[in-house]
Amino acid sequence: MRYLGIDPGTTIIGYGIVEDVGSSLRPLTWGVFRNPGTDSVADKQATAIALADLITSYKPQSAGVERLFFMNNAKTAMAVAEMRGVIMLTLAQHGIPVVEFTPQQVKRGVCGNGQAKKPQVQDMVRMLLHIKEKISPDDAADALALALCCSTARQKY
Amino acid sequence: MRYLGIDPGTTIIGYGIVEDVGSSLRPLTWGVFRNPGTDSVADKQATAIALADLITSYKPQSAGVERLFFMNNAKTAMAVAEMRGVIMLTLAQHGIPVVEFTPQQVKRGVCGNGQAKKPQVQDMVRMLLHIKEKISPDDAADALALALCCSTARQKY
Repeated sequence: MRYLGIDPGTTIIGYGIVEDVGSSLRPLTWGVFRNPGTDSVADKQATAIALADLITSYKPQSAGVERLFFMNNAKTAMAVAEMRGVIMLTLAQHGIPVVEFTPQQVKRGVCGNGQAKKPQVQDMVRMLLHIKEKISPDDAADALALALCCSTARQKY
Repeated sequence: MRYLGIDPGTTIIGYGIVEDVGSSLRPLTWGVFRNPGTDSVADKQATAIALADLITSYKPQSAGVERLFFMNNAKTAMAVAEMRGVIMLTLAQHGIPVVEFTPQQVKRGVCGNGQAKKPQVQDMVRMLLHIKEKISPDDAADALALALCCSTARQKY
């Protein structure tokens, strides 16, 4: 099984794909989609196209997407939520079931602690997936953490 | 030219299409897409499909979508913003340019007063488009108001 993790944003959207091979997991790819953030419609369409290309290349069977409940800046929160809608529609259009995780669930899932900081998430993702180099930017590490959570959640099915 | 107005929501999404014929405008259709609101992914996909069908049937050349800046309930605001993302992506995928209007801009556009109440919007939309019956629900009247604003905005181009 291949699991896709997506960390939604407006100008930077993290992605990561892991595959389970027997009892272990290996990372297939990770990175970010970048948008200029100047035109919300063009950014949405560019993200949908980039995500569709990634899905076509790697054929993940399940996806974990970070869920937002609250952000301090209402305008930013709305913009990120719009991009989340774009991401979830694109996944649905490709027949990929989505599992949603709050930031706390992701931290608890990979670090055992819902209050873990970004460097801890980074370290645990690298350890769990045997990645030697630093995962950059953090959005890609967060996306791999979401893919890991997704693999754990799907095992229960 | 045909103008599509969309009033985003989660369980009810208003739509309306107006056409300019010479110097006057006539309504072509209006109504709402309804979602059960039980599964956000299925609701998004159902809305995208319904909107795509509407676009295919009526071939609007421009769309006006209500813009959210703030809502009292953050969870509702996020859900509506996600649906806005779905709507704007679907419009972009069909090559339809989008103009965004705040609720105040819509009220000022059709009533001349940004603080107008829903019954005034309803009455003005019916008057401007020569619609005899009550437009129900209000979301459809709001969508026709957005289509009217869109036609006004596009005239300037």
